[in-house]
Amino acid sequence: MNQQYPSALLEKAVGEFAKLPGIGRKTAMRLVLHLLKQDTSAVEAFSNAMTTLKHEVKYCKICHNISDTEVCGICSNPLRDASTVCVVENIRDVMAIENTQQYKGLYHVLGGVISPMDGVGPSDLEIDSLVERVREGGVREVIFALSSTMEGDTTNFYIFRKLSGLDVKLSVIARGISVGDELEYTDEVTLGRSILNRTAFTGTM
Amino acid sequence: MNQQYPSALLEKAVGEFAKLPGIGRKTAMRLVLHLLKQDTSAVEAFSNAMTTLKHEVKYCKICHNISDTEVCGICSNPLRDASTVCVVENIRDVMAIENTQQYKGLYHVLGGVISPMDGVGPSDLEIDSLVERVREGGVREVIFALSSTMEGDTTNFYIFRKLSGLDVKLSVIARGISVGDELEYTDEVTLGRSILNRTAFTGTM
Repeated sequence: MNQQYPSALLEKAVGEFAKLPGIGRKTAMRLVLHLLKQDTSAVEAFSNAMTTLKHEVKYCKICHNISDTEVCGICSNPLRDASTVCVVENIRDVMAIENTQQYKGLYHVLGGVISPMDGVGPSDLEIDSLVERVREGGVREVIFALSSTMEGDTTNFYIFRKLSGLDVKLSVIARGISVGDELEYTDEVTLGRSILNRTAFTGTM
Repeated sequence: MNQQYPSALLEKAVGEFAKLPGIGRKTAMRLVLHLLKQDTSAVEAFSNAMTTLKHEVKYCKICHNISDTEVCGICSNPLRDASTVCVVENIRDVMAIENTQQYKGLYHVLGGVISPMDGVGPSDLEIDSLVERVREGGVREVIFALSSTMEGDTTNFYIFRKLSGLDVKLSVIARGISVGDELEYTDEVTLGRSILNRTAFTGTM
């Protein structure tokens, strides 16, 4: 349906919002009209926050996470275990793991996974810098925490090959039944892996 | 859950997006990271579209619809019937009615409906300008096309009182069963209205 917009400026703003993932033209219209109702200062704050971020964003030169400084808060924290590096796809994964408060090592943000369909090859990702980081020494364990998709597995395997021969322990996060999930409703692959990778029962969980 | 953001700039941009209606912090994060992946020019185009709209938007001085000019394209169109005015809540309703291609009259955009709960009174809406428009003459019919909610009905009734005594026909858009809907699944109020407001059957629909 070719919507008739009463204003070219409005159409342009709606078009820009509709470029965002998961935002259709109807939602875009709702968001633009909402912003239009706000004060000019609120609209400018909204626009400026995004352009300022784009202009001033830095990526940590060690783990490539988004950061306000040259080295991010996690990498520069002396209380964290610099000998363990967790390989993740993006910054959202870092935040998800940080929220568990169960991990005290550092990260390495690849910036994606190998996906020939999307034109993403190993050279588009921070893989060489990871190999370099391990080669420099000090890293005793690399934990793979990529998603268990075809692309994630391919990337795991590619990095595994690159790191083999170096004196470093490689591990992968556990796959199994989610805490609280019922056995009978779990898919076969997950249930199978969860039996194969069973852990010692020590009386506490 | 108090998310830890690795960057204050990122947190600010996510916060601004999360102020939008229907956008939570997780979606906001996804949108911000998507924009961050784009070229600087794309991010600036996004931000500028919104600020330009806010700074340069005009409202038609006749119908109060959003417009790029003093008088909007609908009001200035000589082919449209200036004697019929359809009262709607907002510009999205104008676009919805325009898309039907069934209406050839003009509009009057109230900018909302009377809603004491939200602190919206008659003086916050373009009601006085509507009364003035009718008083000036030339308008033969005013069609109410507000939503059939408590607030919409209140607004209809308020305007009805304001316009009573003036030489103008007042009508309200038909409520009934949606085209294609099954009778048995229609709610009682709608079905009841649709029987009361039955129209003459002329052999064509």
